[in-house]
Amino acid sequence: MEFEENGIGEECGVFGCVAAGEWPTQLEVAQVLTLGLVALQHRGQESAGFVVSNGASPPTYTTHKGMGLVSTACPPEALLKLRSGNLGICHTRYSTTGFSELQNCQPFVVDTLHGKIAVAHNGELVNALALRRKVMRHGVGLSTSSDSELITQLLALTPPMEERDAPNWVARIKNLMSETPTSYSLLVMFKDVIYAVRDPYGNRPLCIGRIVPVSKLHSGEEDTEGWVVSSESCSFQSIGAKYYREVLPGEIVQISKHGVKSLSVVPRPEGDPPAFCIFEYVYFARPDSIFEGQMVYTVRQRCGRQLAIEAPTDADVVSTVPESATPAALGYAQQSGLPYVEVLCKNRYVGRTFIQPNTRLRQLGVAKKFGALTDNFAGKRVVLIDDSIVRGNTISPIIKLLKEAGATEVHIRVASPPIRYPCYMGINIPTKEELIANKPEFQDIAGYIGAASVKYLTVEGLVSAVQEGIASLKEKDEMISTSNTSGKRVGHCTACLTGKYPVELEW
Amino acid sequence: MEFEENGIGEECGVFGCVAAGEWPTQLEVAQVLTLGLVALQHRGQESAGFVVSNGASPPTYTTHKGMGLVSTACPPEALLKLRSGNLGICHTRYSTTGFSELQNCQPFVVDTLHGKIAVAHNGELVNALALRRKVMRHGVGLSTSSDSELITQLLALTPPMEERDAPNWVARIKNLMSETPTSYSLLVMFKDVIYAVRDPYGNRPLCIGRIVPVSKLHSGEEDTEGWVVSSESCSFQSIGAKYYREVLPGEIVQISKHGVKSLSVVPRPEGDPPAFCIFEYVYFARPDSIFEGQMVYTVRQRCGRQLAIEAPTDADVVSTVPESATPAALGYAQQSGLPYVEVLCKNRYVGRTFIQPNTRLRQLGVAKKFGALTDNFAGKRVVLIDDSIVRGNTISPIIKLLKEAGATEVHIRVASPPIRYPCYMGINIPTKEELIANKPEFQDIAGYIGAASVKYLTVEGLVSAVQEGIASLKEKDEMISTSNTSGKRVGHCTACLTGKYPVELEW
Amino acid sequence: MEFEENGIGEECGVFGCVAAGEWPTQLEVAQVLTLGLVALQHRGQESAGFVVSNGASPPTYTTHKGMGLVSTACPPEALLKLRSGNLGICHTRYSTTGFSELQNCQPFVVDTLHGKIAVAHNGELVNALALRRKVMRHGVGLSTSSDSELITQLLALTPPMEERDAPNWVARIKNLMSETPTSYSLLVMFKDVIYAVRDPYGNRPLCIGRIVPVSKLHSGEEDTEGWVVSSESCSFQSIGAKYYREVLPGEIVQISKHGVKSLSVVPRPEGDPPAFCIFEYVYFARPDSIFEGQMVYTVRQRCGRQLAIEAPTDADVVSTVPESATPAALGYAQQSGLPYVEVLCKNRYVGRTFIQPNTRLRQLGVAKKFGALTDNFAGKRVVLIDDSIVRGNTISPIIKLLKEAGATEVHIRVASPPIRYPCYMGINIPTKEELIANKPEFQDIAGYIGAASVKYLTVEGLVSAVQEGIASLKEKDEMISTSNTSGKRVGHCTACLTGKYPVELEW
Amino acid sequence: MEFEENGIGEECGVFGCVAAGEWPTQLEVAQVLTLGLVALQHRGQESAGFVVSNGASPPTYTTHKGMGLVSTACPPEALLKLRSGNLGICHTRYSTTGFSELQNCQPFVVDTLHGKIAVAHNGELVNALALRRKVMRHGVGLSTSSDSELITQLLALTPPMEERDAPNWVARIKNLMSETPTSYSLLVMFKDVIYAVRDPYGNRPLCIGRIVPVSKLHSGEEDTEGWVVSSESCSFQSIGAKYYREVLPGEIVQISKHGVKSLSVVPRPEGDPPAFCIFEYVYFARPDSIFEGQMVYTVRQRCGRQLAIEAPTDADVVSTVPESATPAALGYAQQSGLPYVEVLCKNRYVGRTFIQPNTRLRQLGVAKKFGALTDNFAGKRVVLIDDSIVRGNTISPIIKLLKEAGATEVHIRVASPPIRYPCYMGINIPTKEELIANKPEFQDIAGYIGAASVKYLTVEGLVSAVQEGIASLKEKDEMISTSNTSGKRVGHCTACLTGKYPVELEW
Repeated sequence: MEFEENGIGEECGVFGCVAAGEWPTQLEVAQVLTLGLVALQHRGQESAGFVVSNGASPPTYTTHKGMGLVSTACPPEALLKLRSGNLGICHTRYSTTGFSELQNCQPFVVDTLHGKIAVAHNGELVNALALRRKVMRHGVGLSTSSDSELITQLLALTPPMEERDAPNWVARIKNLMSETPTSYSLLVMFKDVIYAVRDPYGNRPLCIGRIVPVSKLHSGEEDTEGWVVSSESCSFQSIGAKYYREVLPGEIVQISKHGVKSLSVVPRPEGDPPAFCIFEYVYFARPDSIFEGQMVYTVRQRCGRQLAIEAPTDADVVSTVPESATPAALGYAQQSGLPYVEVLCKNRYVGRTFIQPNTRLRQLGVAKKFGALTDNFAGKRVVLIDDSIVRGNTISPIIKLLKEAGATEVHIRVASPPIRYPCYMGINIPTKEELIANKPEFQDIAGYIGAASVKYLTVEGLVSAVQEGIASLKEKDEMISTSNTSGKRVGHCTACLTGKYPVELEW
Repeated sequence: MEFEENGIGEECGVFGCVAAGEWPTQLEVAQVLTLGLVALQHRGQESAGFVVSNGASPPTYTTHKGMGLVSTACPPEALLKLRSGNLGICHTRYSTTGFSELQNCQPFVVDTLHGKIAVAHNGELVNALALRRKVMRHGVGLSTSSDSELITQLLALTPPMEERDAPNWVARIKNLMSETPTSYSLLVMFKDVIYAVRDPYGNRPLCIGRIVPVSKLHSGEEDTEGWVVSSESCSFQSIGAKYYREVLPGEIVQISKHGVKSLSVVPRPEGDPPAFCIFEYVYFARPDSIFEGQMVYTVRQRCGRQLAIEAPTDADVVSTVPESATPAALGYAQQSGLPYVEVLCKNRYVGRTFIQPNTRLRQLGVAKKFGALTDNFAGKRVVLIDDSIVRGNTISPIIKLLKEAGATEVHIRVASPPIRYPCYMGINIPTKEELIANKPEFQDIAGYIGAASVKYLTVEGLVSAVQEGIASLKEKDEMISTSNTSGKRVGHCTACLTGKYPVELEW
Repeated sequence: MEFEENGIGEECGVFGCVAAGEWPTQLEVAQVLTLGLVALQHRGQESAGFVVSNGASPPTYTTHKGMGLVSTACPPEALLKLRSGNLGICHTRYSTTGFSELQNCQPFVVDTLHGKIAVAHNGELVNALALRRKVMRHGVGLSTSSDSELITQLLALTPPMEERDAPNWVARIKNLMSETPTSYSLLVMFKDVIYAVRDPYGNRPLCIGRIVPVSKLHSGEEDTEGWVVSSESCSFQSIGAKYYREVLPGEIVQISKHGVKSLSVVPRPEGDPPAFCIFEYVYFARPDSIFEGQMVYTVRQRCGRQLAIEAPTDADVVSTVPESATPAALGYAQQSGLPYVEVLCKNRYVGRTFIQPNTRLRQLGVAKKFGALTDNFAGKRVVLIDDSIVRGNTISPIIKLLKEAGATEVHIRVASPPIRYPCYMGINIPTKEELIANKPEFQDIAGYIGAASVKYLTVEGLVSAVQEGIASLKEKDEMISTSNTSGKRVGHCTACLTGKYPVELEW
Repeated sequence: MEFEENGIGEECGVFGCVAAGEWPTQLEVAQVLTLGLVALQHRGQESAGFVVSNGASPPTYTTHKGMGLVSTACPPEALLKLRSGNLGICHTRYSTTGFSELQNCQPFVVDTLHGKIAVAHNGELVNALALRRKVMRHGVGLSTSSDSELITQLLALTPPMEERDAPNWVARIKNLMSETPTSYSLLVMFKDVIYAVRDPYGNRPLCIGRIVPVSKLHSGEEDTEGWVVSSESCSFQSIGAKYYREVLPGEIVQISKHGVKSLSVVPRPEGDPPAFCIFEYVYFARPDSIFEGQMVYTVRQRCGRQLAIEAPTDADVVSTVPESATPAALGYAQQSGLPYVEVLCKNRYVGRTFIQPNTRLRQLGVAKKFGALTDNFAGKRVVLIDDSIVRGNTISPIIKLLKEAGATEVHIRVASPPIRYPCYMGINIPTKEELIANKPEFQDIAGYIGAASVKYLTVEGLVSAVQEGIASLKEKDEMISTSNTSGKRVGHCTACLTGKYPVELEW
């Protein structure tokens, strides 16, 4: 809950689709893109952008971008416009800076000597500034501050000497990957193919799905209507696609009407483990998504169980700050044996009301967002599970609300460790100074927020809760384990918790 | 969940506020109205309307109405405009007919010989057509089809002979009440007072709150900053007000800067019990609201327990169709001893996407709205609790989704009885023919929707779950029990379930 | 030009259409209404409203209202919605008070015992306040401050004793006319007929046209596709209709699919002349409209000629403040023999720019609106014709502009007399104090505005320029001359110039 | 009039401003830019864009772009945002292709090694395609199809070897000019200066003004508050600036807070005359603008006189298709001695009404746009002056309207020669096949459009009407005549009339 309140968030979601077989097919690519992107809406609500190609020679590209949720950004006339697509990519964006303009929306399309390419990505290039200087030194003017434009110009820039008549996109993408180690999950559309790329550290997620006829969705038959690629597998359910596999760290996958083909896996430096963002499990991803073979909900529930082991509480009931902390709260309840009850009722219609805050309203604060379900906890000691405490200023009024409504004690248990360090790989985190874990008040955090006690999950506890499930999957899923031979197979980025970044930061 | 999907819904929420003490006070009435209405947003999302009065002689009224949610309908300039108010009423409306225009929005304001009156109400006059004819026979043209205008003209119309210099609003309101028995909870604002009125059967809810300084919100001290009146008490929490009491069936309460005064209680016909809408408990109200001394959440939980007694299931896990059925599901789990798990993950960003449905999309249906939390139920027998099944066409794809994701059996338990009859008192229900309970398919409802079994709560079970809590409160709350002397003190309208309407329908 | 700048303006335009012959016909009534209203747009730009009826028993009425110009207020979906109409009325409104809300938009529709009636009118009831009190004393609440609602309720209110099964609308309209002498041109739609009514003084214009097949538009043949009624005949050209005749002062005309029928002519009090607003000629009407048998442009040109006779100038060139004063300027040039040149170039894109005025901008003032066509007048003495000077603050910067660009002298000649009195009959005029003619500065108006000399047309000159053309038409047009037998046949309201109002003002 | 109807139009207007003296000054640059651009609105109504710089080291640039007229595109909050500017450029765009997106709006801003540059231009590069290929061959991806981005990337691309620490923008601009001969009038803003550039052929206009205190606007004193540069001098009047001089063909002028400095004049190839677009005189420019020392209105009037000499008519009255042909009509009237009258009244409120055309409406066509001022021409022979006939389908219904309203003969005289060839230099002209002058019907154009006779001005007549005024100015204005030594001093592009393009078209 803290994340949401504090403007911490994922920067983006990407999604792509290619109709299988001879074009045009029955599959309405624009519809698939729209539904797929709606299922990634939790990864970004600021803007939505679509580019489709008819796949012809030369191809016709059609673009639509709009501000706001997919449903707002993509009105009927836009969908109509996009119907010509036999393949396409799309993108939903989270506002990281408050500065949001349509021209910063992805996908980014540029015309090159070989025709147009379209690029959408999730992540943040750790060496973006150095790369910008390099590109500009070559004489290229950059019209936005977005990494997407930078990536696109880097792809366009590769000296043409190594190419004859046609562009060698794989070589260009490899070249790009050699320039920047992380963090990006990338979709590059050129004419009739989509290249799906994950950085060598696998910091951001990306997975592939297969569209089958709805009637055969759950049979084992092999009809394929199209291929989709997405930041998260939750979007496959929405469109009736089957989960196929993850794109591997460092892998370049080509998706065309003929199918899916792995072109290359760029290795990490010797000895480096992968660095998949652990907060995808903790907070960002939708609970029904699958990463590394395990469902996110289950990982969160394990975090709750682990938390109950690490930080047991003498209390009467366990509850959740709805809705994101619920799996952890149920896990805590199961492990601890304490009964699970609901204590807060969320007003789902609270939006931006244009009320100028006065003292009264500031004091009320969270009250317009949550109602107290008094009967469930009055006279009781409550363990309240939250998924994170970032700034520490949103949990405090909730505790006050519960105590005033009759809770005798409110114990806070946080299903993730304290965030202490900035992220340079695509997550928007408050400045170091704003993080409660770096403030003097953290010494007496319980007193500061008015709780009877506060305990966080340990880093080790979190990592084990995450990796335990992967371990148990190793035997089943040989595809993953054999493909990336450099360094360890399992590893997660915990930089915001530990300050240990997966690559050296050179700026 | 069914309710929401099928366009069943409450018609309205009303809210009013009067600043206490000498005007102007510190209390910003326009802000209180806005926040109060946001907390009633679940009762209507089509439009929002506000009327404030400065309370002077003659008073200045300021009106603002807008389409959509409060946050949309009430932009900053509207709030600014309304700042002059020392008292005011507001209203949020649910679209009952699909026909929605700004001019049908409440509150309705008319100029009369004595000055302007403003009226907002929740409910539906059972004899509206007869009353319209009566008013028009008097030579009045009606410019809308709304009951609010009708009520307002009826209030204006009372022959002036019984009044001298000033209007006798209580007499006029009593006269109105003698013309129409139910259903209405009514706010009438005239100059510097608000009259809060509930019909003699108490069919729609209405309660009063007291605004105290935030710092003293939970102390016993008696500073009063203002008075509020609302369809539901959940809006009091939002604004830092304390629950004061319900308006009684048939009661006319005057709210002014001097306080709250009960002016009269109009009795029901001899022997008639009250008829508070039982579906306020089952579905409409926010779970943290209080009716008849009991919290709605608790009643829903009792319904779940009662259902477990009436309809036990041989299964592995109990779950909910989020979010409205969760209290009942937790109640069922507690009573049955089966573990509670989550099986569905809701995409809260699914809105109106402008996708023209094709076969594929129709088949996918609910998939874009819910994701399956597979790990929690694969290989298991699931009892899925829903709060209602109205048309029977939304639960079916959910069952399919769960079975395809690995549930071995899906048993449906419904925490309310089947709806079989239309409501004429303000609830929007499909036609008799559309209700699944009236269709031949209902004979084999389990087969029809693809469930292993389907069982509904009985009417008796529902009534006892509702009234059990009231009974236990009788001793504490003498105010309610003594005030309405005609007929029985406890009684609920179950017309949509039983066809027994609280009054004779004369059209 | 002054009028426009100073917020002086007509309050409304009304338009109606009935398809002739058996319904449905080929004629698209909604289109005719829209085009007809666009041609009346100069009479009001604040809002547009439409009501159509299918004419059945009982009829279905469809309403659409919107803010802004017809093109904004009437989007495609509105036109679609209105296609069901076989007859309809519409209205465009000028903001008289700055207070504008959709609910004040006409036409006003109310439901009565006999069914719905719709009313649109142009004008202002001189005794509106007394009538409001009367209506409210009867027990009717009025929901707006508009005369339209008042008229509609008065029509509804007529005691039903004089009617049996069906309403007697003519009696009701006559009754209304007996209650209020002026000022109104009125369209009342009931089921399948439109009643077109002009007040006994004929203060506001209203005329009838006949829609013929486009191919026969200028032949003498008699096919009739429909009937239209409009504030001004300029709207007939737009839709391919032929001018048929004016509605006479006091006349009630019934328009149905069977044709046009004069039902009654309500007389004025003995001796009272008609009082058609003379400013319709001077400023409000479109120059191609026809009143009393003469084209407005020609009257304005005659005013210019008369002005040249009354106020000759020793100068080199004659010019206009574009565009409304051009006919008068050409008339002045013809009469005086001085050459006509253009001296000002209008920037037709100047709209509302959101620039906060600072000193520089205030000083520049009119410069953003007009450019000087220097070559045409540098070194010359200019006679500049304006149609009116109301407040005197807009002509001043124009004179400055011309002098700075090289005019040696600028003489102002105004083609109408000074306005000195308020209008209570539907024209929005600044307060008496704001009118330049009532200020001390008027003694030396030339010095005040920086002109070499300023002269106005006399009241006698204006009246003779207007009536000269009517006189010459008398023989041709016997229909008009014989129909209204009470009092003189020709007469114009000059109240704003002379203070002589056509009726006694009793409030 | 034909131009407007047929989508022929200028592509753009550019405007820039630099505050003089020590920053910040009293001059509000954002306001000056807005007002300046409003005065260029006739050159483009599709979008408006603004970029301001605070001029610091490093500078902060602020950008605002919006669709529609300046008044729509630039709301109050945008103006507020732009207030930080001490200098700035802006641009208004005409939709040439129907394809209009915000991202194509100018000015175009890119980040380079040396900092950001902003570019706005008017015109079209004749060799754009070749230049695009060249840029892309260098590895630059182009994200739009606009020439502005191309120009910007060309400026960024110049090999950095010739520069040391700071960019040599003059060298880069010269380099750009050596790559592309025409057509462009260009504003380049870098940090604290604006470079104003006109292509060597001077195809598009550009001139400089000086802002003086309003009180001294027409004195000879020399206080300078700022400098402005604009496509047309009409924008100087709007903001109270004095006309300073034209930018010469091929000239690079630097405008800074220190004043205006001519940096270089790039010559044309030996023997090539300048090629200022003659249609700026005929149609595009506002009549109060000054080109080559003469007022556009006067040139148009001379065209009318010349037309009267070349094509006299035996008729009764001369008139105009309002409003653009009026100067020519007055010129024709003066030369011919025939009286000038108005025959058409324009409905200035005709906008986009969403009426689906049916037969009736198509037949009526122009009627909703123009009313006939019948009295002025009934029974007379009319000479109607138009400024151009492009496709021939809009004049035809006007002739029909006049004849039906009583004109005995309608003779068309066109104040420019027939357009026969496409323009590749920034003017949007229908395809060759669509031009009436290239159709068989042109042989009997009078019969085709229903006129008694049709005559066009000759090319020689047009050129002499344009150049006659320049000749007479030669002695006065030595600045112009001495500056550009290569080739003839006077010359105009008549390519669309003659097919003789100023440069060879190499694609």
